[in-house]
Amino acid sequence: MNHRQDLDWMQYCLELAAKAKGQTAPNPLVGSVIVKQGNRLGAGFHPKAGQPHAEALAIAEARAKYGKAAIEGATLYVNLEPCNHHGRTPPCTEAIIKAGIKRVVVGMIDPDLRVSGTGCDRLRQAGIEVITGIAEAACQRLNEGFVHRVRHQTPLGIFKYAMTLDGKIATAAGHSFWITGEAARREVHLLRASCDAVITGGNTVRLDNPLLTTHNLTTHNPLRVVLSRSLDLPRDAKLWQVGNSDRGDNKGQNHPTLVITQPHANPELQSYLCDRGVEILTLPELTIQAVIQELGSRGMNQVLWECGGNLAAEAIAAGAVQKVYAFIAPKLIGDFAAPSPIADLGLRQMSQALDLRQTELRQIDRDWLITGYLNNQS
Amino acid sequence: MNHRQDLDWMQYCLELAAKAKGQTAPNPLVGSVIVKQGNRLGAGFHPKAGQPHAEALAIAEARAKYGKAAIEGATLYVNLEPCNHHGRTPPCTEAIIKAGIKRVVVGMIDPDLRVSGTGCDRLRQAGIEVITGIAEAACQRLNEGFVHRVRHQTPLGIFKYAMTLDGKIATAAGHSFWITGEAARREVHLLRASCDAVITGGNTVRLDNPLLTTHNLTTHNPLRVVLSRSLDLPRDAKLWQVGNSDRGDNKGQNHPTLVITQPHANPELQSYLCDRGVEILTLPELTIQAVIQELGSRGMNQVLWECGGNLAAEAIAAGAVQKVYAFIAPKLIGDFAAPSPIADLGLRQMSQALDLRQTELRQIDRDWLITGYLNNQS
Repeated sequence: MNHRQDLDWMQYCLELAAKAKGQTAPNPLVGSVIVKQGNRLGAGFHPKAGQPHAEALAIAEARAKYGKAAIEGATLYVNLEPCNHHGRTPPCTEAIIKAGIKRVVVGMIDPDLRVSGTGCDRLRQAGIEVITGIAEAACQRLNEGFVHRVRHQTPLGIFKYAMTLDGKIATAAGHSFWITGEAARREVHLLRASCDAVITGGNTVRLDNPLLTTHNLTTHNPLRVVLSRSLDLPRDAKLWQVGNSDRGDNKGQNHPTLVITQPHANPELQSYLCDRGVEILTLPELTIQAVIQELGSRGMNQVLWECGGNLAAEAIAAGAVQKVYAFIAPKLIGDFAAPSPIADLGLRQMSQALDLRQTELRQIDRDWLITGYLNNQS
Repeated sequence: MNHRQDLDWMQYCLELAAKAKGQTAPNPLVGSVIVKQGNRLGAGFHPKAGQPHAEALAIAEARAKYGKAAIEGATLYVNLEPCNHHGRTPPCTEAIIKAGIKRVVVGMIDPDLRVSGTGCDRLRQAGIEVITGIAEAACQRLNEGFVHRVRHQTPLGIFKYAMTLDGKIATAAGHSFWITGEAARREVHLLRASCDAVITGGNTVRLDNPLLTTHNLTTHNPLRVVLSRSLDLPRDAKLWQVGNSDRGDNKGQNHPTLVITQPHANPELQSYLCDRGVEILTLPELTIQAVIQELGSRGMNQVLWECGGNLAAEAIAAGAVQKVYAFIAPKLIGDFAAPSPIADLGLRQMSQALDLRQTELRQIDRDWLITGYLNNQS
């Protein structure tokens, strides 16, 4: 096997893994393929927590198609170190050993420092050749949300906004439909589909009345989270249509919504929302830290902040945002009073500005998308 | 001659022409080359108003190098239709006819509708084969400033700004040094060098105290224009160092400054500035229209608006801006109170936003430059 072939098969694992984007939390995205003499014997990806791991599915497919003997001596590729512990499924290391795999190529080691490397150690003890760090940067990138949560117990936060070329997310009158074109908005729906939650604030609910779903791009929708200390929210918001009522227009889809508030806020609305199937969580004090700890404890790997400038500034200041998606439309709207993406961060000098690193730029039809990482990500 | 070769030689003309960027007003940028059997006999570009035209220089070079006879039967390429009238120099059409040129390839017709096409007609009358519209889009682009002034009697206006990825041109405290990196700032100096004037307002002079020169990228500096109704400006601004005083620190360079104001504004400062060699123009009422008409009547083809959001909004609303250069830095500064590029344009709905067309994007080191045209350009 040469390195080029190893990279190609690892790329294949990543493509398989990515099929379950936004659906595996608290688990990572994992794809695996079994190869012998250049031939693909079987492959699989982890579809969802509680369901089989990618390695087990790859072995099962290879066995079903070619028989037990064919797998012996084969190479197994997997983008994340195989697990070595009994969870909801038996350890993948034992399945690999039992199948007679001779060589295992691993993209990245498990980020959980308590188990990191033990999967590879177990395989090596069993006499299997193990190669690690193949296409590692791409593997780390695909699972950056999982890696972040494992290290920090809170999800990776992505702040997304769309603005005009003169830096406005709405007119002074509050109108924001639409800044970007259809293709860019579809990209936002894909981004939502890759996240475990979409977080917004009361202002956005009151002003924009957003839906915050994937618009049927996926059957899975991220949990929609509304942060509101006052709970001074309208009764007819689209976010309250959670799809587990018996309304006929939900087409069987599930759009769960969680409202996080503080004690005694608007009890009438609380009970109205409860009746509609909206989950209410009351925190003694609604802080960004408490919110991301709650979402982390629910096993969320990656969450999307789709909110106005005040909540965005709070989230950034609290270190809850690691990544930025800035959509820019080729238009000018003007007005100092029109809202911009981020409220006061307490920065007085331009030299204090928060730098983005690993920036990337894509043209999306007539709009642009600039992405980058804030330096607070470890 | 095939079309590919014609395009290549026209491209060569454009490259020659561009060498005089920012220095030919009120004239256009013109380059010319004489070619025979695939060989370059002579070439030239118009360096400055009052100096010879490109065609005359090309003929002179060819004649000096190869003799009069060699030119006969050759092809002359030129990006703009040869002139057919006596101005400060004799008409190029007569020089071309006299030289015995057999074929003339023209990039674009003269935009001045009063003379448009007459140069080509004269050449054809003389039995010369004339081909027009070769690389026309690129030719139009190179001389877009000239074309605009000829059509509208006012210069093409370019609005340039630099902002953070969250749409701010300074912190709330007014600090703006530096938003973009060195390479992007050098690009601004090159942009200035291509313009006949750089226009700013009193706020920028008071807050930023800019120099607005090409920072020695060129010996030529655009006229620096300050618009101030009140003339409430500091005495020690860098813009008052115009380089024609006997101060030793000007290194012989010329950095002319024009201040446009209204009657009776701050007479003490007026006489102070006059003494320093700053030109003062008093308009009965300082309006954007009056300013661009004045600059147009001075023969300016292209001017750069480097100003804060209030003056930018005035210029855009008055139709004085046709092109936008938006530099974007990969950083976030926050604060709704921090200034954005453009003040109120009276647009209340996002659907009223001013669309940019023919947008282009370039990465400049860590920053980006987005350019585009406002739809008001005819």
